[in-house]
Amino acid sequence: MIDLRSDTVTRPSDAMRESARDATVGDDVYQEDPTVNELERRAAERLGMEAALFVPSGTMGNQVAARTHTERGQEILLERNSHIYRWELAGLAQHGALQTRPLDGTDRGVLTPETVHDGVVSADGHRPGTGLLALENTHNAAGGTAVAPDAIDATAQAAHDHGVPVHLDGARLGNAAVAQDVSLSRMTREVDSVMLCLSKGLGAPVGSVLAGSEAFIERARRVRKLLGGGLRQAGIVAAPGLRALDNVDRLAADHENARLLAESLSELPGLSVQEPETNIVLVETERTATAFLDRCSDVGVGGVAFDDHLVRFTIHWDVDRDDIETAVDRIATVC
Amino acid sequence: MIDLRSDTVTRPSDAMRESARDATVGDDVYQEDPTVNELERRAAERLGMEAALFVPSGTMGNQVAARTHTERGQEILLERNSHIYRWELAGLAQHGALQTRPLDGTDRGVLTPETVHDGVVSADGHRPGTGLLALENTHNAAGGTAVAPDAIDATAQAAHDHGVPVHLDGARLGNAAVAQDVSLSRMTREVDSVMLCLSKGLGAPVGSVLAGSEAFIERARRVRKLLGGGLRQAGIVAAPGLRALDNVDRLAADHENARLLAESLSELPGLSVQEPETNIVLVETERTATAFLDRCSDVGVGGVAFDDHLVRFTIHWDVDRDDIETAVDRIATVC
Amino acid sequence: MIDLRSDTVTRPSDAMRESARDATVGDDVYQEDPTVNELERRAAERLGMEAALFVPSGTMGNQVAARTHTERGQEILLERNSHIYRWELAGLAQHGALQTRPLDGTDRGVLTPETVHDGVVSADGHRPGTGLLALENTHNAAGGTAVAPDAIDATAQAAHDHGVPVHLDGARLGNAAVAQDVSLSRMTREVDSVMLCLSKGLGAPVGSVLAGSEAFIERARRVRKLLGGGLRQAGIVAAPGLRALDNVDRLAADHENARLLAESLSELPGLSVQEPETNIVLVETERTATAFLDRCSDVGVGGVAFDDHLVRFTIHWDVDRDDIETAVDRIATVC
Amino acid sequence: MIDLRSDTVTRPSDAMRESARDATVGDDVYQEDPTVNELERRAAERLGMEAALFVPSGTMGNQVAARTHTERGQEILLERNSHIYRWELAGLAQHGALQTRPLDGTDRGVLTPETVHDGVVSADGHRPGTGLLALENTHNAAGGTAVAPDAIDATAQAAHDHGVPVHLDGARLGNAAVAQDVSLSRMTREVDSVMLCLSKGLGAPVGSVLAGSEAFIERARRVRKLLGGGLRQAGIVAAPGLRALDNVDRLAADHENARLLAESLSELPGLSVQEPETNIVLVETERTATAFLDRCSDVGVGGVAFDDHLVRFTIHWDVDRDDIETAVDRIATVC
Repeated sequence: MIDLRSDTVTRPSDAMRESARDATVGDDVYQEDPTVNELERRAAERLGMEAALFVPSGTMGNQVAARTHTERGQEILLERNSHIYRWELAGLAQHGALQTRPLDGTDRGVLTPETVHDGVVSADGHRPGTGLLALENTHNAAGGTAVAPDAIDATAQAAHDHGVPVHLDGARLGNAAVAQDVSLSRMTREVDSVMLCLSKGLGAPVGSVLAGSEAFIERARRVRKLLGGGLRQAGIVAAPGLRALDNVDRLAADHENARLLAESLSELPGLSVQEPETNIVLVETERTATAFLDRCSDVGVGGVAFDDHLVRFTIHWDVDRDDIETAVDRIATVC
Repeated sequence: MIDLRSDTVTRPSDAMRESARDATVGDDVYQEDPTVNELERRAAERLGMEAALFVPSGTMGNQVAARTHTERGQEILLERNSHIYRWELAGLAQHGALQTRPLDGTDRGVLTPETVHDGVVSADGHRPGTGLLALENTHNAAGGTAVAPDAIDATAQAAHDHGVPVHLDGARLGNAAVAQDVSLSRMTREVDSVMLCLSKGLGAPVGSVLAGSEAFIERARRVRKLLGGGLRQAGIVAAPGLRALDNVDRLAADHENARLLAESLSELPGLSVQEPETNIVLVETERTATAFLDRCSDVGVGGVAFDDHLVRFTIHWDVDRDDIETAVDRIATVC
Repeated sequence: MIDLRSDTVTRPSDAMRESARDATVGDDVYQEDPTVNELERRAAERLGMEAALFVPSGTMGNQVAARTHTERGQEILLERNSHIYRWELAGLAQHGALQTRPLDGTDRGVLTPETVHDGVVSADGHRPGTGLLALENTHNAAGGTAVAPDAIDATAQAAHDHGVPVHLDGARLGNAAVAQDVSLSRMTREVDSVMLCLSKGLGAPVGSVLAGSEAFIERARRVRKLLGGGLRQAGIVAAPGLRALDNVDRLAADHENARLLAESLSELPGLSVQEPETNIVLVETERTATAFLDRCSDVGVGGVAFDDHLVRFTIHWDVDRDDIETAVDRIATVC
Repeated sequence: MIDLRSDTVTRPSDAMRESARDATVGDDVYQEDPTVNELERRAAERLGMEAALFVPSGTMGNQVAARTHTERGQEILLERNSHIYRWELAGLAQHGALQTRPLDGTDRGVLTPETVHDGVVSADGHRPGTGLLALENTHNAAGGTAVAPDAIDATAQAAHDHGVPVHLDGARLGNAAVAQDVSLSRMTREVDSVMLCLSKGLGAPVGSVLAGSEAFIERARRVRKLLGGGLRQAGIVAAPGLRALDNVDRLAADHENARLLAESLSELPGLSVQEPETNIVLVETERTATAFLDRCSDVGVGGVAFDDHLVRFTIHWDVDRDDIETAVDRIATVC
C-alpha cells in the first residue's frame, strides 16, 4: 500500500526513535522536563513568539488557543472550510461557548481583510462581540494552499484594527513557509498565536506546539491541563519533536513529489487535477470519490474523499519519487 | 414621537389590561394556572401542534427549542441573518453547546431545500452532525419577508430527509400568515416546533408561546425552568396573550400602513425603499443610517439602524394611517 | 382545599390586579418601561443597593447573579440544602460552568465564617479557585430559618477576606427581616448582590428583583437577556411587584399563623413539629410523608414532602387564622 | 535530591526506552497503531473489561469517562477529597455541565453504600438527577488508602440499585491490588469504567488507559478526540505503557519502602505519621508544612504540602531502600 491518505501517517525516522530512547526527561506538569523545555524554547524561537507550549495534538492546540483568547459567548471568525470549524467536533462551542461565524474565503481558502472587516460584530445587549479570528495556513481543505505572508499580515491587521486577536492554525505552516521560501517566523508576524504540528509532514510521532506571548502561554498551560493535556515525562515524544523542527526544509521534496503526482494524474482520463501549492493534491473524479478510492485501494494506493467527487492525496516523507511513479501506474489501471 | 423602532413597543389595549386584572390564576410551576393552560391549549390549536408552552420572551422560546431538539456538540443550520444567530447573544453556543452553520438565504432571507441539503453534515469521529434547522418567518433582517408555506414545507422536508428536525422562529408568524391569507397552522405544517410572539404586532405586553409535540413540550418545560422561565401566577400576562391570539387578522392593517409608508418615502429624495411584504419597511439612505435617524428623531419619528446605510421602520397597532402620514411629512423635512 | 404547599400559590390582591390594569408601560428591553424603572429604583433602595433588575423568577435571579459574579471553572460555596444547589436543575454548572462546593450549615441552615474560611480554595494549576459564596435567608429547607443579620455579615466578611464576593438568595428575605424586626437593607449590609422574590409571601403574581452595584446590574442585564429574561411591557407585572414591596410588614401575620399551626399540630399524635421562625412549618411524621400528605389531601389540606418523613406546610396571605384552625381540625382527623 | 514529591516523577526504565525506540507504529486516529491496539487489548484484559482506550493523562481519562457516562445537567457523586473533584480544574462542570455532589468518606476516603444511597437524587422538574458515581482507589488524599474489593463492590452496587453507573479513578489501582494481594480485575468487578495510570508507580513516561464496555469505549473515543486526545503514532508511548502493565507486582517494593519511611519518621520529634497502606506516607508536622518542606528541600528531600500541617511523601521506583534511609537521616537533621 502506498499510503497517500494523510501526512499524519508518517512513521518516525530512526534518528527520532533514537532520540526518544535517549531523551533526558522530567515531570512536565512541574515544568521539569528538560527536553520539553528545550522544544518549547526552540519552537517559540522558530515561530517568532515569546513562548510555546507542547500539546498532544493539533486539535488540542487550536482549542486551547481559542479558549485562551476569548470569553464565553463571543464570536469567532473562521474560514468556511477551515479545520477548526469542520473537523474538531464543534469544540469551539463545546469548550469555549463560542459562536462560529464562518466567512467565505477565496477559492484557495484565503480570507481577505475586507471579509474580516465585514465579519466583525460589536458587542451590545443582543449581539455577541467578535472575540477571535482564526486563520489556517496551509489551508487543508482548499488543497494545501500556501497563503502568502503579506496576505496573512493584512488579514490579521484587519482583525487587530477592531481589537480582535488572531490565531493561526499552522498545522502545516512548514509547508507554507517552504513553498514560499520564507522562514516560519515570517509567516506569523502579525498573528497573536500559532499552532504547528510536529507530526504530519515534519514526521514526529506525536504532538504539536502552541506559541504566543508569555502571558498567553501561561494561561494556555492551565487550559491544557483542563483538557487533560498535561503530560509527565513528555520528553520521550518531545525529543522526536525537536528533530521534527529540523525537518522543515525537507518538505520541499514533498512538494516536488506532489507536483509530479499532479502532472501525471492530470494526463489520466476521468480525472481533473488542481495544481498543488504544497504537499496536497486534489483530484476531481468522474466517478464518485468513494468508488474511485475503492478501486485505488484495490490496486494499493490510499487517499481520502473530500467531497462527492473530490479526492485528496497527500505526500509525505514515507513516500519517495519511486512510490509516486508506482502510485500513478496503479491509478492508471483503474482510470 | 411616532415610534417606528419596533413592533415590540406596542402597548396593550384596554381589553388586554382588563383581562389581566380579571384573570383566573394559579401557580403555573404546578401547571395550575387556568389562564396559562387555556392559552397553551389555544396556541397549540392555532399553530397546528399537539401542545404549547408559555415563555416570557421570544428569545427564551427559541433557545429552549434549540436545546430541547439537540444534543450538545451538534450543528444548527440557520440563515445568515436570522435573529437566533445574530441577536440572541450566542445563546446557541452558550446554552446548547451548538456550532452554528449559517447558510446563505435568498435576498429575502429564504433558505432553499438545496441549501439545506448541502449544509447537512453527517456525524463522524471528527465532524459534529447536524442537529437542527432553524427557519424564520417573517424574516426580520430581510425586511419582514413572508416566506411562502410551500417554501417552508419544502425546506423543512429537505432537513427531514436527513433526519434533522426543524424549528420555526415565528416571532412574527402572524404577519406571514395574514400577508399570504393562510392560517397560522398552514405555515407550520412541516416543522417540528414553532415559536410565536404574543408581544410584537399582536400587542400583548409580555410573552411568547413555543409549540410542538407533547413529548417535545414536556422536555421543553424542564429546559424553561433551567433558564428561569418558570413563572407563578402567569395568567396575569397569559390573559392579554389570549387576546393577542385574536389579533392576527388585525395585522392586515399594519401591512397596509407599511405599504403607504413605503410608497410615500420612495418619493422622497435620497431614500431608496424596499417594497414591504408585511409590517417592516427597509430604507436605504444616502446619509449614514445613524445621521438620518438622528434627524428623524429631531422631528419626532423613531426607527432603527440595520446597517451603515439601512434603516428599518416597523409598523404596529399603536400607529394608524394618520400617524403614517404625519411621519412621512416629518421625514420629508429632513430629506 | 386549604393550600399550604407553598407561598408561591398566593393570588394577587385586587389592588395588585388594578395596578396591572392601570400600569404605565413601555418597552423594557429599551429600558423605557416607567413602572419597571420605578420598581427597580425602589427595590434597590429597600435592599440597600445601588441598582436593581426585574427578573421573571427567583431562579433566574440567582442564576444571573452566579454567572455575573464568576468566571467559568470557578467554585461556588453554598449550603448543602440551599435552593440554588438542590432545586435549580444544576444551573450553576449548566449556565456558569461552576463547580459546586456544598458546605454543612448548622441545623438551621446557617453557614459559619469558619466553614466558609475552610471551604475557600485558591486557584492554581490544578485547582479551581473559589468564585462566589451563596447564602440563603430565610433558609427554606431548614424550615424558613431567619438568619441573623450579624451572622450574615460575619459569614460574608469571611468570604470577602479571601476576595470572594457574596450573593444572597433572599427569595423570602422579607420574612427574615420581619421576624427579626429589622429592615431589608440591614440584612444585605455585607453582601454584594441579593435576589428578592416579589411572588411568594409578598403576593405578586410574577417576578423577582436582583440588586447589587450599578456595574454588576449592568452586566447582569446582558446575562438576563441571554437567558431569555428580557421582557417588553413588563410594567404589567412590575406594577403588582411594586405593591408587593409594600407587603413586607404584612408577613408578620403569616408568622403568627405559622406559630399557631405549629403549636396546634404539636399536640396531635404521631407528629413532631419544629418551632417555626417565619412562615414555614416542618413536621416530622410517623407515617411516610407521602402517605400522610395523601390523607391530608383527602380532607382538604395541602403540603409538600421534604423528606421520607418530613412535611412542609407554608403559610401565606391566602390563608388566615380561621383557615389555620380549620386545617388543624382536618389534619387531626387523619392522625 | 531524593524526590518524594510524587510517583509521577518516575523516569522510564531502559527497557521502556528501548521499547519506545523499537515500537511498531501507525496512525492511531485511524486505529492503525498496532502497539496502541495491543496495549488497549491487554489493558482491557487486565482490568476485566471489554475494551480500553489509551489517553494522554489520567485527568483526560477521568473527564472522558464522566462525560461519556452522563447527560449535561446531571449530578455526579464523588468523595469530598477525591482527585476528580479537587484537582481537575472543575472539568466536571466545564466539560460535562455536571453538578458535583461531594460525599463524606470515612477517614480513609471510603464511601459506604449508605452514603451513596442517601446521596442519590431523582430527577424531577427542579432537581438534576444523579448521573454517575465516581470512586477512587487507592485514595490519594486520604493517604494512598487501598479500598477493599468488597467495599468497592458494595458501594458500586448501591449506585446500580438506583440505575446510576460507576466510574473508578484507578490512577493507582495497581497499588490497591498489590496491597491486598488481588488482581486488577478483582478491583473492578462492579464498576462500569476504570481509569489506570501507566505513569505514576508503573513507570511509563506518558499515558493512562480508560476501560469499559465496547459501546462505552466507542463513545469515549469521540469524546477523547473532542478534548484533543487523539494522537498519531502513539505506539512510541504505548510501548513503554505495555511494559508498565507488567510492573504491577513491583509496586510491593514501594509499599515496603513506604512502611520503612513511616516507621523511621514516626521516631523523629515533631512528626506524627499515618500508617501507610500503599506507597504514600502522610506526615503531620508541628511546624507548618511549608516551613518543614523548605527545610527538607535544603537537605535534599522533596515532598508536597497537603494541608497547613500535613505533608505527603510518595515512594516510587526511582527510590530504593538506601534512598529511604538517606532521606530519613536528612529529615532527622531538620527535626
